Amino acid sequence: MTRQYRITLLPGDGIGPEILAVTVDILKLVGTQLDIDFQFQEALIGGVAIDETGKPLPDETLEICRSSDAVLLAAIGGYKWDNLPREQRPETGLLAIRAGLNLFANLRPATILPQLIDASSLKPEIVEGVDIMVVRELTGGIYFGEPKGIFETETGEKRGVNTMAYTESEIDRIAKVAFEAAQKRSGKLCSVDKANVLDVSQLWRDRVTLMGKKYPDVELSHLYVDNAAMQLVREPKQFDTIVTGNLFGDILSDAAAMLTGSIGMLPSASLGLEKPGLFEPVHGSAPDIAGQDKANPLAQVLSAAMMLRYGLNEPKAATKLEKAVLEALAQGYRTGDIMSQGMKAVGCKAMGEVLLRILES
Amino acid sequence: MTRQYRITLLPGDGIGPEILAVTVDILKLVGTQLDIDFQFQEALIGGVAIDETGKPLPDETLEICRSSDAVLLAAIGGYKWDNLPREQRPETGLLAIRAGLNLFANLRPATILPQLIDASSLKPEIVEGVDIMVVRELTGGIYFGEPKGIFETETGEKRGVNTMAYTESEIDRIAKVAFEAAQKRSGKLCSVDKANVLDVSQLWRDRVTLMGKKYPDVELSHLYVDNAAMQLVREPKQFDTIVTGNLFGDILSDAAAMLTGSIGMLPSASLGLEKPGLFEPVHGSAPDIAGQDKANPLAQVLSAAMMLRYGLNEPKAATKLEKAVLEALAQGYRTGDIMSQGMKAVGCKAMGEVLLRILES
Ligand SMILES: [Mg+2]
Ligand SMILES: [Mg+2]
Repeated sequence: MTRQYRITLLPGDGIGPEILAVTVDILKLVGTQLDIDFQFQEALIGGVAIDETGKPLPDETLEICRSSDAVLLAAIGGYKWDNLPREQRPETGLLAIRAGLNLFANLRPATILPQLIDASSLKPEIVEGVDIMVVRELTGGIYFGEPKGIFETETGEKRGVNTMAYTESEIDRIAKVAFEAAQKRSGKLCSVDKANVLDVSQLWRDRVTLMGKKYPDVELSHLYVDNAAMQLVREPKQFDTIVTGNLFGDILSDAAAMLTGSIGMLPSASLGLEKPGLFEPVHGSAPDIAGQDKANPLAQVLSAAMMLRYGLNEPKAATKLEKAVLEALAQGYRTGDIMSQGMKAVGCKAMGEVLLRILES
Repeated sequence: MTRQYRITLLPGDGIGPEILAVTVDILKLVGTQLDIDFQFQEALIGGVAIDETGKPLPDETLEICRSSDAVLLAAIGGYKWDNLPREQRPETGLLAIRAGLNLFANLRPATILPQLIDASSLKPEIVEGVDIMVVRELTGGIYFGEPKGIFETETGEKRGVNTMAYTESEIDRIAKVAFEAAQKRSGKLCSVDKANVLDVSQLWRDRVTLMGKKYPDVELSHLYVDNAAMQLVREPKQFDTIVTGNLFGDILSDAAAMLTGSIGMLPSASLGLEKPGLFEPVHGSAPDIAGQDKANPLAQVLSAAMMLRYGLNEPKAATKLEKAVLEALAQGYRTGDIMSQGMKAVGCKAMGEVLLRILES
């Protein structure tokens, strides 16, 4: 039977429209092959939304997103809007859509692709086979905790204050996402905190441990954040799925991403309790090469794969996309950002055609 | 004219007494050569202090330390004391002496020694020449901020809370240490914060920027902590001196240390506004090899070099020690922890004799 999904497309700014167009063609083909009917609808976000409506996230866009099964975002921002006040900047649209869809779980894979292993600053034998998923809490912790601000002390000097806080229910829901992600992967979950010093981390560790009892098939371990940062550098292969709070996840997901050496290849997913989730590449809108058919569409394609796996529960289709990307790299096709000697240089559209050809064969 | 310094020695537990004994012999020799009169006094800390006095930091030890020009600590802790309540554990002695001496600045170098470059998990061309100094604030920030604890919310669930806070004067004094450290080094200082999200970081950035006006010879830059973690992995050579708060410094100093691949080689310094500072290796007490003449004394010797440079302002003597360590490695001498093929395996004492011979020649 045909499965139907409504997908909201948010092309955004810079190279966004180009890489998303390539991805939509690929989704259509895979849909035909696997009897999935994708219904695409486009909406505005970021700089282009500011230009057309004055707001980085128009209400209409949020409504369209809410009524869909998944949201596929490309990239936002550009020089043109950099000097606007903060609430009118493209990035504010991104924060607003995450909040508007209640996306509290950020999934950031850091996978070494064998064809690009030389891009890593680490030795090949250290990073070979690295396949890490960082599950980061996205709507709580110190980035949102109250009280916050700059206050005056009794002695008249300024004191800057932020609050790192988590409630039991906030911890439970992100832990659940992480245990389920670990189940879909190797069944290993490492929770990262600073429970030897922080009370909020002690609660975090207690609740994650408790949740672990419901997932006896997942092997749970705990690391302090400073040790986790060390271990990521020392022996990244020891990790599979990592779950951690907003600040620690911000730091560790970026450090883990950098282990691959090719951040332009990485997708991400942001999930809530219900549909729709939001799927987008980690890289930005690259305004310097926009409209020149030079962009690398692979992180966008891999974001669509995450949408299929984590947003629509279509693992077969997800695997098809992931394998096509690996095969295109194995055949030597490279966009400019990942080009190396002896490889075949292609543009954005040509890379898309390579993927279509691989999927058809 | 002879300079006189009173040095308190805290041998502590495990391999502590062995590596400190080697270091004291070296200091005595260098003292004779450079007309420095070191007066050593020993005191108890850690497990050995618990065994003899019931306390991990006896009052007498703190008094002796306060009356000296510098404190040279080896290592504390061991299996024997692991099950005591937290306030009676050896590690509590370490926290207590830092607080008792008001040591708010932690200096953690991460230096690639060319002879040990293969120990790094990063490619040699990436880490060659890396020489980073992380200046971490040690007595403020989220590890100490109030309110903290686990509270009940209105809906009856638990909420864990910690407070990241810095006052202007706390920021100013650590910034001053960092600018002065940068002056003694290459004149480049990178301040790490999360000012795009955190109010406390915005105050941090403002004060560090202001302090920078007093140090026109130091080139100041700023990075967000997630980007700093990425850049440490991507291209560590871009860093010289880094200054940051307690939590970020905890994470980044460990990540930077791990870039070297040989954490057993790294010293550290903790400084206050006045003498004495505390100088100790980053490694632990290694109870499994204690008393077997297998320990690596080089991090302790390098800690003595930091004492000479940052605690006693004797840079000439510091350089002598550092050069002797490099020369011993260049001559192929290795303790078990850093042994590799074709090198000469030596024990702790023999490594000390190698250093003495090099210093005498
Ligand atoms: Mg980040
Ligand atoms: Mg640490």
